[in-house]
Amino acid sequence: MSSYKASLEAAARFLKQHQHFLVVNHVNPDGDATGSLLAMGWLLRQLDKQVTLVNEGKTPAKFMFLPGADDILNASERAEHPTYGTIITCDCADFARVGEVAAWFTQERELLNIDHHPTNDLFGTVNLVRTDAAATAEIIFDLVKHMGLPLGKELATCLYTGLLTDTGGFRYSNTTPYVMEAASELLAHRVEPAAIAERVLESITKAHVSLLQRSLQTLELTDNDKAAYLTVTLTDLIETGANNEDTEGLVNYGRNIEGVEVGVLFKEVADGKVKVSFRSRSEVDVAAIAKSFGGGGHVRAAGCTVSGTIVEVKKAVSQKVSAALRECGNE
Amino acid sequence: MSSYKASLEAAARFLKQHQHFLVVNHVNPDGDATGSLLAMGWLLRQLDKQVTLVNEGKTPAKFMFLPGADDILNASERAEHPTYGTIITCDCADFARVGEVAAWFTQERELLNIDHHPTNDLFGTVNLVRTDAAATAEIIFDLVKHMGLPLGKELATCLYTGLLTDTGGFRYSNTTPYVMEAASELLAHRVEPAAIAERVLESITKAHVSLLQRSLQTLELTDNDKAAYLTVTLTDLIETGANNEDTEGLVNYGRNIEGVEVGVLFKEVADGKVKVSFRSRSEVDVAAIAKSFGGGGHVRAAGCTVSGTIVEVKKAVSQKVSAALRECGNE
Repeated sequence: MSSYKASLEAAARFLKQHQHFLVVNHVNPDGDATGSLLAMGWLLRQLDKQVTLVNEGKTPAKFMFLPGADDILNASERAEHPTYGTIITCDCADFARVGEVAAWFTQERELLNIDHHPTNDLFGTVNLVRTDAAATAEIIFDLVKHMGLPLGKELATCLYTGLLTDTGGFRYSNTTPYVMEAASELLAHRVEPAAIAERVLESITKAHVSLLQRSLQTLELTDNDKAAYLTVTLTDLIETGANNEDTEGLVNYGRNIEGVEVGVLFKEVADGKVKVSFRSRSEVDVAAIAKSFGGGGHVRAAGCTVSGTIVEVKKAVSQKVSAALRECGNE
Repeated sequence: MSSYKASLEAAARFLKQHQHFLVVNHVNPDGDATGSLLAMGWLLRQLDKQVTLVNEGKTPAKFMFLPGADDILNASERAEHPTYGTIITCDCADFARVGEVAAWFTQERELLNIDHHPTNDLFGTVNLVRTDAAATAEIIFDLVKHMGLPLGKELATCLYTGLLTDTGGFRYSNTTPYVMEAASELLAHRVEPAAIAERVLESITKAHVSLLQRSLQTLELTDNDKAAYLTVTLTDLIETGANNEDTEGLVNYGRNIEGVEVGVLFKEVADGKVKVSFRSRSEVDVAAIAKSFGGGGHVRAAGCTVSGTIVEVKKAVSQKVSAALRECGNE
């Protein structure tokens, strides 16, 4: 038996052995965290188990259409709460990712850790971790198959949403043949791909549109149009009533312009600081640039927060970007 | 044998019987038209056939990365050309869709018509048409399987691109379990999903970004924020150097705003006319509105061209949109 198969078996045993579960996902949950959490709820109810779903904060509005989303408790709203001895964490690379929900766990807890992050440190009593899975939802799909459980529309919808969001709408390189095979089987259970994509990928807020319009006015192409810079000021954020979610994706507009290799967004935050987001197309290692400013991330998507005015930070960052482009022969 | 299976068999016979093929797709080819055309080229070369690929015009730049795209002839550039007696049309709902390439056909031609449009009028000698296929590429995938041919990386890449684009990046309701099953099998042949998605779905031009910025400044929300109107003037088009492709997708920005049911783009064209594009989310039949102005389309995506100034056309159109929203209880 492969070690992954053994961990599926151990996870199945964990679910059968216990009766009441607290299921938690990570702070600031994304589509996979939310979809996985809800999928575990549907799976456990099929086994006639009692289940409590909780997140440290509020589930983002765009995921509230998911079946069962209304039942997710918001820990930050509850001064008083019971404690639980049987825990399942979904999509959490380490224990700290559950945030303040940790206070809901008893000392002698048993914990099933279901996750796909390469950095997962196996903090569970039982660890169901496959780091080449595109999403935690993919692993829960495996678990459903392993246990021979039926896929209902609700469970399939939650899992599909996890796959869809963690593959960037089936656009990232983690879109494997197996992801598509799983998506195919999930769709066969009356999942509505268009309705889900519209809600989780295509919906934009009025504030986002206003910010987009303002930031596009600041577009600057440099280094023979290989670098694209966009800016969002505190004034923009205040006047458009935008929150952090509303700025998501802005940086891609620069990177997506034909011929551009590096897209950068400068966002003014409080205390004389600027948050810098980087995206690259195929050559420049933006994680290295972000790291040189105390940040980090992936080779194609990274970020850092730098003290200074936008003008100052932009000058420092653009020098590093130009140097990186020169190194790649993109002078 | 089902009639579809019979038509696959007839198509296979057509390919085996002849030696030299002219393969053509429709004017202004999209990703499915281009992917299908190229896929037929790879398929025929596997059978040791001679093949000439042609389009009425130029293949759009964003599809030029597809393997074999350099070999597609541009009919508009050739005053002199041979004529062909064995024709394959890809993704053409009727004969007129081949455009001026019709002049390349002999009178006594034999024609294999491969298409998925519900309006296909079966104009071929042999018709391989399945109207519930998401893409013509899906039908060519069936043909490859039916004939027991191998899927190489090149053929798989062309077919995947057709599936990807005609399902709107697997976001439309035509994203069936079978589409995902085919995508899974294609990906197993070294197709690079991220590179393809980036090129065909995410690339934007500088002119598009400039137009987007200008048109977002014109955003108007009416009918309790259920309708979103965007405008592009001739001046915008001239000053940004934009072509028709650059305006693609602008209308979606209005429709995608949370709570909006109908998005409309007014684009000033020559001769005192305005091109109107409609998108709706889930309730309003925009095809009916477009039809009332002499246009047409689908329930959720339609268009028309109306004489008058932008102000005049907007007034007339917005009255119909308001009425349609009232009918759906969206007053």
